[in-house]
Amino acid sequence: MAARKLTRRAGRDAAGAFLAEGRQAVREALADPASVREVFATEAAAAASADLLAASPLPVRLVTDKAAASLSETVSPQGLVAVCALRDVPAEQVLATPPRLAVALAELNDPGNAGTVLRTADACGAGAVVFGAGSADPFGGKAVRASAGSLFHLDVVRSAPLEPLVGKLQAAGVAVLAADGGGEASLDELDDVLAGPVLWLFGNEARGVPPALAAAADARVRVPMRGRAESLNLAAAAAICLYATQLAQR
Amino acid sequence: MAARKLTRRAGRDAAGAFLAEGRQAVREALADPASVREVFATEAAAAASADLLAASPLPVRLVTDKAAASLSETVSPQGLVAVCALRDVPAEQVLATPPRLAVALAELNDPGNAGTVLRTADACGAGAVVFGAGSADPFGGKAVRASAGSLFHLDVVRSAPLEPLVGKLQAAGVAVLAADGGGEASLDELDDVLAGPVLWLFGNEARGVPPALAAAADARVRVPMRGRAESLNLAAAAAICLYATQLAQR
Repeated sequence: MAARKLTRRAGRDAAGAFLAEGRQAVREALADPASVREVFATEAAAAASADLLAASPLPVRLVTDKAAASLSETVSPQGLVAVCALRDVPAEQVLATPPRLAVALAELNDPGNAGTVLRTADACGAGAVVFGAGSADPFGGKAVRASAGSLFHLDVVRSAPLEPLVGKLQAAGVAVLAADGGGEASLDELDDVLAGPVLWLFGNEARGVPPALAAAADARVRVPMRGRAESLNLAAAAAICLYATQLAQR
Repeated sequence: MAARKLTRRAGRDAAGAFLAEGRQAVREALADPASVREVFATEAAAAASADLLAASPLPVRLVTDKAAASLSETVSPQGLVAVCALRDVPAEQVLATPPRLAVALAELNDPGNAGTVLRTADACGAGAVVFGAGSADPFGGKAVRASAGSLFHLDVVRSAPLEPLVGKLQAAGVAVLAADGGGEASLDELDDVLAGPVLWLFGNEARGVPPALAAAADARVRVPMRGRAESLNLAAAAAICLYATQLAQR
């Protein structure tokens, strides 16, 4: 099956398409029918999701459990997969009208974390998530799954150099904040800054935001902690920073 | 190697011990030397962590890379593992002196999430995390790793029925709050409640807190969202709830 090539980044690049697996992702994909190229389902999944598949502009192709599983990166495949056109946008689109809340990921490696941060950014009203060069691919299976549909809700830049982006957004009046466990600013004392337009920078799980990028930010921000943990999990820290921003921006 | 049995829950139960893998976990384990039964290291890891292993009360047993990998659940084993006595406490200990902030996990399946919530609870100053019967084992390899040492910082109850615990804590004046995306209370309007002693209930990744338990709580609490995401990832929601509590309790 040609669609199997989409489980690898090179295959997605070549085809300009990615796999959206499971009921939730397929429903979101079908909300923009023109972007859907193929829909695969096992017999069982087609029956269980007949309501949803009635909206498909294409005939559903029935496949075996084994074929469906070969398109999935999960241990319990749902038997339902859409092939969708890649939906990333150029960085220029984010720069043209900077959203009030945006997120950039610098060398964030883990696709599960990437998808989780996308989901949280969506929940907190972010308009765009920019994946820096060297970060996980937001259109890989694990990231798509962890995003739980949020990939379809906001502007996603798939791979952009972050330093020029940061400079241009600063020039446009956006406060750039780097999440940094050792940062000089404490999240709970930043409400004035958070109330304006903000770009949050989140970095690598082990190394944090790369030093040059952190230095270019307007502030390096720590989440205040009163317990004994040395640091927070990256997706947990991002959730706290983005929620605090959402509250300040109301 | 007998220690390999500790990669399974039944093996941990039988031996009353678990595996702490990697520099961070081994350092935390050695802070309480009497609880450490064995330390294994590859030659490379022993050299790289000589500083840390000098604190070991036991001679370090050199093992092959392959043997070290067989004790690890990660794709890139660190080659350094301590066998530690299980360090869970009975639920009665939490009830005897309820901490100002405690967490209970109801049918939380994913060990990575379990460890991440432990880490966040520690960061936010929680005194105890109670794992309900049927939740992931906090002493399994993935949970220990995701907890990033926090397993050693607070009281962990490994498997307890949660309904009696909830009733007794309520009788002791603790507000019991169930995280629930459809809850009637909004997190941002609860500062008065959060300022007092609180037990947070977090549930299953797909099904949430079991209905009977959610009904027994003093409130079912949603994280307010302004974007289009239907829900938050469990560990992200927990991070937001626990951080909000930490701020209110200052």
